[in-house]
Amino acid sequence: MTDALTYREAGVDLEAARRAKARIAELVECTRTGAVASRFGSFGGRFRAADGRDLVASVDGVGTKLKVAFLAGRHDTVGIDLVNHCVNDILAEGARPLVFMDYVACGTLDPDIVTAVVAGLARACRDNGCALIGGETAEMPDFYGVGEYDLAGFVVGEIAYPAVGERRVEEGDVLLGLASSGLHTNGYSFVRRLLFDRLGLEVTDRFPDTDRTVAEVLLTPHRSYLAPLESSLSAGRVRALAHITGGGIPGNLDRVLPADLDAVVRTAAWTPPVEFRVLGRESGAPGDELFRVFNMGIGMIAVVPPGEVERVASEVSAAGCETFVLGELVPGSGGVRLE
Amino acid sequence: MTDALTYREAGVDLEAARRAKARIAELVECTRTGAVASRFGSFGGRFRAADGRDLVASVDGVGTKLKVAFLAGRHDTVGIDLVNHCVNDILAEGARPLVFMDYVACGTLDPDIVTAVVAGLARACRDNGCALIGGETAEMPDFYGVGEYDLAGFVVGEIAYPAVGERRVEEGDVLLGLASSGLHTNGYSFVRRLLFDRLGLEVTDRFPDTDRTVAEVLLTPHRSYLAPLESSLSAGRVRALAHITGGGIPGNLDRVLPADLDAVVRTAAWTPPVEFRVLGRESGAPGDELFRVFNMGIGMIAVVPPGEVERVASEVSAAGCETFVLGELVPGSGGVRLE
Repeated sequence: MTDALTYREAGVDLEAARRAKARIAELVECTRTGAVASRFGSFGGRFRAADGRDLVASVDGVGTKLKVAFLAGRHDTVGIDLVNHCVNDILAEGARPLVFMDYVACGTLDPDIVTAVVAGLARACRDNGCALIGGETAEMPDFYGVGEYDLAGFVVGEIAYPAVGERRVEEGDVLLGLASSGLHTNGYSFVRRLLFDRLGLEVTDRFPDTDRTVAEVLLTPHRSYLAPLESSLSAGRVRALAHITGGGIPGNLDRVLPADLDAVVRTAAWTPPVEFRVLGRESGAPGDELFRVFNMGIGMIAVVPPGEVERVASEVSAAGCETFVLGELVPGSGGVRLE
Repeated sequence: MTDALTYREAGVDLEAARRAKARIAELVECTRTGAVASRFGSFGGRFRAADGRDLVASVDGVGTKLKVAFLAGRHDTVGIDLVNHCVNDILAEGARPLVFMDYVACGTLDPDIVTAVVAGLARACRDNGCALIGGETAEMPDFYGVGEYDLAGFVVGEIAYPAVGERRVEEGDVLLGLASSGLHTNGYSFVRRLLFDRLGLEVTDRFPDTDRTVAEVLLTPHRSYLAPLESSLSAGRVRALAHITGGGIPGNLDRVLPADLDAVVRTAAWTPPVEFRVLGRESGAPGDELFRVFNMGIGMIAVVPPGEVERVASEVSAAGCETFVLGELVPGSGGVRLE
């Protein structure tokens, strides 16, 4: 299919990213101190305060989802995306958020825009029981267009669910998928190229096959899994968590696998929501590519012992988040098999 | 003087920044939890882990100094700027750095550039005894030009010098200025407008009145004051520290003053290094403006009891950093008086 859109054509080179990552890993290793308790490539960096208590920090951005916010002139949702993304990352390390800080960089400071961005951050911080303790608003003429900005965030949390951080997963453990609330914060370069450049849609147009606008579908905030998982995590029913972000299920679930187990994920176990079906159909991209670029409807995967699956599923559902039994762990070599 | 260059003309509106800051302070206040131990507007956000140990976090960017790095094609110094800036910020709260995380956003990932940036970060982290525990490298097509990027960093430290964080300064305390290593990371929009646009200089040209190039002068890394101050801080000889960044001496020294004292700073107490004299002469900007935009040769101010001044000055000098007695604290209303 020669006109299928791929992520590389959309301007994102995941291979170059991987090469740089390997070189960066060496540089990072040289700075290791006694305070460090995590390996390069974790969902969050774990470190130890002088008293032995483990903390986890993580940094993230919103990526080109911001461009959709600019087009729609809507700036109070991207902060929610950022906070929830960071909270999910450290949750996958077994931590609950303590504090959050933001970095907003713009060309010329527009007080209304910055205030809307911070309002989103503050709302999500409150919802996650996390304090927004500071931030940097940088005015950088010549870096950003009028009304445009970049946004990054940093979270620090404390280990609250140590078992999740230890990832003692076993053969036969079940992969329980938690529904995403939409695209979350990944695949937006692909989506923008497809919807705006190729299909010529505008943010106010109807998103194909839905009764929502393009802006509504694309700006739906990244969901936080802290509240839905809280009961199950407190009860120790979950052995590991994989936050499904850039790289999709295959690029994130592998991070919680030991060298002797594979994860089998049956893609027939759930129906990707309409936006993913539309993106697949209109782009012509092969399924493999779609599963690497998008979360496909699964935002978090919990690895759960078989005897606890029913209980976890019901606790998560009770908190308003749908779940799907995706597959299980089988003998293998640390890989993810989509079947 | 009608052709004098001001910061606002250079595209930076400090007044709009202040207005947004007030609105943001209210939003931030709503997220306060029991973990927060600092007020809005501190050099760093202080928070408490469950065991009662105080930590301090801070976030910063490099600002438009990055544009000079792009013009010079030199990417291994801006990471040093960023780490040292963050380390100085939490030092002013009495904290030593534990861990650092970075956010690098670029249009298309160039592995050589990203690796050079991280090499600078890693070198400065090592020098400050701080671990680089993670980072986000975001590829955002359409946000950044070829070879360009934005860079932000986040540090978490532990309170090591609690007296500095408490700021129990008294009438008669002496203001001891520590020499900056150059422009550090402030005033670059002003500088670029003046040197490149108005004077038509290039980064390879000689910086006026010096035997260094424009790139060499402008890319000199922001110095860390952790090592020079370590002995004096450990011995409890310093009552407060003000890191002189955006806003200059008047915009930062006021942050450590109680409501009933003024800081008197005698500008004749030191000679600003040649680059500041050149920037003043060529811009025609009034002295007040220069002192708000630039550090003018003073990167950190230590508030020291009179009986300790000689000792602190000799300890800091022994570590290779020049000092100047700038003035003292007098009865007043929390203001900074440049005389």
